[in-house]
Amino acid sequence: MTVTMPPTPGAYLDHAATTPMSAPALAAFVAEAGRTGNASSLHSAGRAARRTVEESRESVAAALGARPSEVIFTAGGTEADNLAIKGIFWGRRTQDPRRIRVLVSAVEHHAVLDPAFWLAGHAGAEITLLPVDGEGRVDLDALRAELAEHADEVALVSVMWANNEVGTVQPVREVARIAHQHGVPVHTDAVQAVGQVEVDFAASGVDALTVSGHKVGGPVGVGALLARRDLPLEAVSHGGGQERGVRSGTLDVAAIRALAVAVTDAVSRRAERAASFAALRDELVAGVRRVAPDAVLRGPDPTGGTADAPWRLPANAHFTFPGAEGDSLLYLLDSAGVQASTGSACQAGVPQPSHVLLAMGVDEVAARGALRFSLGDTSTRADVDALLAALPQVVQRAQAAGLVSARQGGAA
Amino acid sequence: MTVTMPPTPGAYLDHAATTPMSAPALAAFVAEAGRTGNASSLHSAGRAARRTVEESRESVAAALGARPSEVIFTAGGTEADNLAIKGIFWGRRTQDPRRIRVLVSAVEHHAVLDPAFWLAGHAGAEITLLPVDGEGRVDLDALRAELAEHADEVALVSVMWANNEVGTVQPVREVARIAHQHGVPVHTDAVQAVGQVEVDFAASGVDALTVSGHKVGGPVGVGALLARRDLPLEAVSHGGGQERGVRSGTLDVAAIRALAVAVTDAVSRRAERAASFAALRDELVAGVRRVAPDAVLRGPDPTGGTADAPWRLPANAHFTFPGAEGDSLLYLLDSAGVQASTGSACQAGVPQPSHVLLAMGVDEVAARGALRFSLGDTSTRADVDALLAALPQVVQRAQAAGLVSARQGGAA
Repeated sequence: MTVTMPPTPGAYLDHAATTPMSAPALAAFVAEAGRTGNASSLHSAGRAARRTVEESRESVAAALGARPSEVIFTAGGTEADNLAIKGIFWGRRTQDPRRIRVLVSAVEHHAVLDPAFWLAGHAGAEITLLPVDGEGRVDLDALRAELAEHADEVALVSVMWANNEVGTVQPVREVARIAHQHGVPVHTDAVQAVGQVEVDFAASGVDALTVSGHKVGGPVGVGALLARRDLPLEAVSHGGGQERGVRSGTLDVAAIRALAVAVTDAVSRRAERAASFAALRDELVAGVRRVAPDAVLRGPDPTGGTADAPWRLPANAHFTFPGAEGDSLLYLLDSAGVQASTGSACQAGVPQPSHVLLAMGVDEVAARGALRFSLGDTSTRADVDALLAALPQVVQRAQAAGLVSARQGGAA
Repeated sequence: MTVTMPPTPGAYLDHAATTPMSAPALAAFVAEAGRTGNASSLHSAGRAARRTVEESRESVAAALGARPSEVIFTAGGTEADNLAIKGIFWGRRTQDPRRIRVLVSAVEHHAVLDPAFWLAGHAGAEITLLPVDGEGRVDLDALRAELAEHADEVALVSVMWANNEVGTVQPVREVARIAHQHGVPVHTDAVQAVGQVEVDFAASGVDALTVSGHKVGGPVGVGALLARRDLPLEAVSHGGGQERGVRSGTLDVAAIRALAVAVTDAVSRRAERAASFAALRDELVAGVRRVAPDAVLRGPDPTGGTADAPWRLPANAHFTFPGAEGDSLLYLLDSAGVQASTGSACQAGVPQPSHVLLAMGVDEVAARGALRFSLGDTSTRADVDALLAALPQVVQRAQAAGLVSARQGGAA
C-alpha cells in the first residue's frame, strides 16, 4: 500500500506543537495495524507482535545511544514525563524517606512541572525551581548550591534537553555530572531535541530521558522513557505489568513500530535536517527583523555554538512584538494563512504570559506579545515568505488593537 | 485511499485479547493522520483537529448513552481504569478524609485490581474484594453488607460490566442502585461488554465507565473514561490539562477518530453481532463437549438470560481441561494453527492459576487447565472447525504431559 501525505495547510510554522506524520511512519503503522496480535499473548500472533515491539525497541535504542532494555514505551511524552518525575520520586523515597526534594528548571514543560507540583500536594514533595539566565539557560551554580545544601534530601533533578518555547539547548551533560557527584539521578525531557541536536543517552550521562512520537514524524499517542536499569523507578500506571512492570496497558504495536521508523529516520538525517532548518530559520529571523524592526528575538543567539552543539534548536525562532498581544498576532496571521503559536500549544488558550519568558526575566507586558515559529521537514521558503508578507500589517493591526485595549483598560 | 485488511492468521480465537482493527477505523485513522494540527493549538489547523475530537466525542457519547461532556479520551482501557480508581479515590478522599475504602469485585481485571492495591500501599486505601458465586457473578449481599457497615468510609465501588476470562455479565445496574443508596459512586470496566451487550451509561446509573479501542475494532492505545460531571475525579496524569484537566497529553486525534468509528460501528451492529457470536460460540461449546467430553465449561450458562440481557458475553467460551496445563494446551493448539488464551493476555506468561477462577471456587489444580476462546467480527465456522479438529489430540498430549510432570513433581 502506498501512503501519500497531503500538504500541510497554508504556511504551517508550528512544527514544535506537532509535525506531520511521515509517509514511512504512517505506512509502517498501517502495515502493523493490519496484523492482529496482543504482544502479551503467547500464541504465534502474539509472539509476532512481540517481535515487532522488540525490534522497534532495538531501533529506538540504537538511534538514541541506549540499550534496548532501557527503552520503556509509553503513550507519549507527557506520560513519559509523569513516569519519570513520579516514578523516580517514589522509587528514591522508598529507598530513603528523607528524599523528598525535586529540583526542576523554571522553564520546564508543564508535563514536568505539573507532576512535580502534584507530588508536592499529594506526596509531601518539596519543589525547587532552578533559575535560568536571560536566554533560558539553567543556572548551574544554583544547582550546585542546592545539591551542596540538600543532596541527601534530593530525589531527582529534571532539566529539559531543549526548551519548547525559545529553543534553548540546556547543558544537560553538565547537569548530570554535577548531580551524580551527589548521587542524585537526572531526568531530561528531550521531546524537542531529538532529530535536531545530537541526543545520545549513554554519552549524556542522564538516568532517564523522554521521547515523543509526534514531534519527529511519528504518531501522536506514543513515546518512550529511556531509563537506566539501576534507576529506582516505580510504576505510575498499574495493570498488566508490561514494560518491566513500570508501564501497564496493551502494547500499541503499530504506533511503536511507527515511532521507531520516525525516530530512526529523524536521527539518521539529523545533521542535514539541522542545517536545513537553521538556514531557513536564519532567513526567517532576518526577515522578521527587517519587516518588523521592533520585534525582540527571545532565547539564545541562533548563531551561537557549533553545528553539532548549537545554543538554540535550529528549527526554533521566537519573538516578542512590543505593544501587541500574542493571541491577536496569532489570529491575524492565521487569517493570512500563516500558522504559528504563542508558545506551548498545551498552554495556548490560557491568557497568561509564558512562565518560560517570565523566568528569563522578560516583564509581563512584553511577554504577552510572544510568538513562536517552528520548522519541520515539510517547511519551505514559501512558508517563510508568506509570513514575511503578512507580518507588517498583522503587527500594525495587533499593536493598534493593543493600544485600544490598553486605553480601555486605563479607563475602566 | 482504500484500506484492505489481511485475514487473521490461522484460526484466531483470541479476540478478547485484541481484535483486528476494522477497515473503516483504519481508513479514518489514515485520513486524520494525514492532516496536521495539535487540537490545543489556536490556529486553523489546530481548530480543525479540535473539531474532529469534538465530533468523535459526540459519536462515542451517542453510541454509549452518555453526554459528550462526559467523555474523557485516554490512551486505552488501562489508563481509563487507573484514572477511575485513583482519580475517584483521591477526589472523594479530598472531600472527606474518612473515605479510604475501595470495594472491587474479586474478578476484576488487573487494570482495576492493581491500581486499587497500589493505593493501599501508597495512599492508605483499604481494599475489599467482593466475593463472586461459582459463575463469577458478584455477591450483592456482600456489597450491601459492606456498605451498611462502612458507607461513610467508602470512596468507590468498581465492578466490571462483563468478565474478560469467563464472560460473566455482572448486575451493574443493581450495583449502582445499591451503592447510590449510600451515596457511593460506582465505576465499571466495560471494555469487554461494548458491542456485545447493551451498554448505556445513563441508563446503567454508574458514575464512570471504561471503554477500550482495540477490543471493538479500533486502534490499540486509545480508549475513554465516561464520567459524570458531578463525580469527584482528580487528575492522574499532569501536564497540558487537556480533557477537563483530568487527562494531560496531546490529544491523539487520528486514534480518537478511529475509536469513534469503531465504537459507533460495533454498537450499531450490536444485536446482529451478538446473535452471530452466540450462534458460533454455541457451536464451539457443543463441539468441545463432543470431542473433549471431560472438559468443564466455566462461567455462566451460555443459554442463560435473554438475547438483550444474556448472562454471558456471546463471544466468550471458557473451559478447564482436567489433567492438562493451560499453557500446554495453548502451545499445542498454536502448533495446529489455532490461537487461544489461558485467560487474560495481560497475565499470560505468568504461570499462576487465574484469580478469576479461584474466586469462583475452582481449585488450583483444575484452574491450571484453563483455556479461553473468544470470537470477533472476522470469526468463521472454519475457525471453530479447526479447533475441533485439533482439540482431541491436543488434549490427549497435554494430559500426557501433565501426567509426566505430576509424576516428576511427586518424585522430586
